[in-house]
Amino acid sequence: MNEEEIRARIRAGRDFLRMPEHEEDYQTDQQLKKPQPPLVKEAVSDIRIPLPVDYQSLPIDNDFLHIINSRSSHRVYTDEEISLLELSYLLWCSQGVKGIRGRAYATLRTVPCGGARHEFETYLYIRKVEGLQPGCYHYLPLSHELEFLKEMPEDFVSPSLEGQAWARKASVIFYYSFVAYRAEWRYGIHAHRMVPADAGHVTENLYLAATSIGLGGCAIGAVDGKLCDEAFGLDGEEEFIFYAFPLGTVRESDQQKELDFYAFVREQGL
Amino acid sequence: MNEEEIRARIRAGRDFLRMPEHEEDYQTDQQLKKPQPPLVKEAVSDIRIPLPVDYQSLPIDNDFLHIINSRSSHRVYTDEEISLLELSYLLWCSQGVKGIRGRAYATLRTVPCGGARHEFETYLYIRKVEGLQPGCYHYLPLSHELEFLKEMPEDFVSPSLEGQAWARKASVIFYYSFVAYRAEWRYGIHAHRMVPADAGHVTENLYLAATSIGLGGCAIGAVDGKLCDEAFGLDGEEEFIFYAFPLGTVRESDQQKELDFYAFVREQGL
Repeated sequence: MNEEEIRARIRAGRDFLRMPEHEEDYQTDQQLKKPQPPLVKEAVSDIRIPLPVDYQSLPIDNDFLHIINSRSSHRVYTDEEISLLELSYLLWCSQGVKGIRGRAYATLRTVPCGGARHEFETYLYIRKVEGLQPGCYHYLPLSHELEFLKEMPEDFVSPSLEGQAWARKASVIFYYSFVAYRAEWRYGIHAHRMVPADAGHVTENLYLAATSIGLGGCAIGAVDGKLCDEAFGLDGEEEFIFYAFPLGTVRESDQQKELDFYAFVREQGL
Repeated sequence: MNEEEIRARIRAGRDFLRMPEHEEDYQTDQQLKKPQPPLVKEAVSDIRIPLPVDYQSLPIDNDFLHIINSRSSHRVYTDEEISLLELSYLLWCSQGVKGIRGRAYATLRTVPCGGARHEFETYLYIRKVEGLQPGCYHYLPLSHELEFLKEMPEDFVSPSLEGQAWARKASVIFYYSFVAYRAEWRYGIHAHRMVPADAGHVTENLYLAATSIGLGGCAIGAVDGKLCDEAFGLDGEEEFIFYAFPLGTVRESDQQKELDFYAFVREQGL
């Protein structure tokens, strides 16, 4: 890759982040009054797991500023099981549906999203969650249930995250797909610029909710799209995985092990 | 714009979100051991405003799940002043620096960011904040201060946000710039894909922190880049505004006015 190619790629990347020019002769499908796509993806499996919703028994840290101040990225897990109630709470805080706007115009969720399009589906690889067999699952936000998709050996985890071996001890890995037309119906050719920002809203709530109950995780953009799409049955075009969040059990005394991920900083005198 | 052009733009947008292919012969500037850019932008003004940090006196809602459940986007403001302590709290929760990794390798903040690059600067248009003259400001995260940049009439607000008139009654508007090389030094040609996700982490904390003290706001990607860059003295190339968040005082009885923004849903039977 020569200097000129590198400069062109950098320029294109920067341009993607800029507010685009208004296109005089362009209308989105919403503006053209085309029918909108479904708000969520239908269940495909008969095996459904209702999620418990009485969060009273969870030891939620109720010092908001303490949660903000103590959140950090966790890549070292103690490899224990989390409860189904904990998983339910994490799913609720990051993608829970609080209501519907209009007849079926938009879901209102625990996270904000551009135009309330909520263009993500949440898939899970479950390793160690109370009462659930390991494998691939899909979150059904309207009924707050899981559906079981299929068994999958746990050596799926590391390659699915581009070889990030630390994630193998996570209790559960959240994989977020982008359902393209859900955003494109409203925003058309301008739909994609702010999609990762919406994903950032989701994972920040996940970070904070995990912190609030003593769990930990780390958002990562490095995914093997093909492997993930195959695992969860996505076509890779209209819907594809683009973001992930391994989450597990943590303990304070592993702080030093977390720092080992940054050994290069000391070694290189940065 | 013809069908083919539209399809090409949609395809390019989707491709931007996908994990990119590994480039065999490419190394980032960090891999090439080039010196890294400064962690934050230096102050340029002599007029500095220290921000109070004793948040004990703020009426912070300490029911975390209630904050999560009650967060919503607010576009109707009662046009009152917020206190300097409230503004300080909002800045802390969204970009506060908790520590430094290595000698000067990374800032550790109240929000996560890919590679801890924290590639944003926070600029403010202040309309109604206790004790501050209206105008353009810049947040200095290392010392938790504001610096005053310049006076600016308040008719800047609406055009700076592509004509979104509702923002005119916000007490303060947060404008986030992308400082390109701060992310590109580490991630090079792959730097840009997850930058909006990092911005989403920031604004989600802002949403939640605002909710926790009874204020409200709304993240928006529609900014007039040129106007914003001029206002805050940015070159528009190495650093440019790409995301904003008007924030103001709200009251529950304005709920109906908020719903007026969605009148089209009822009118069109969506």
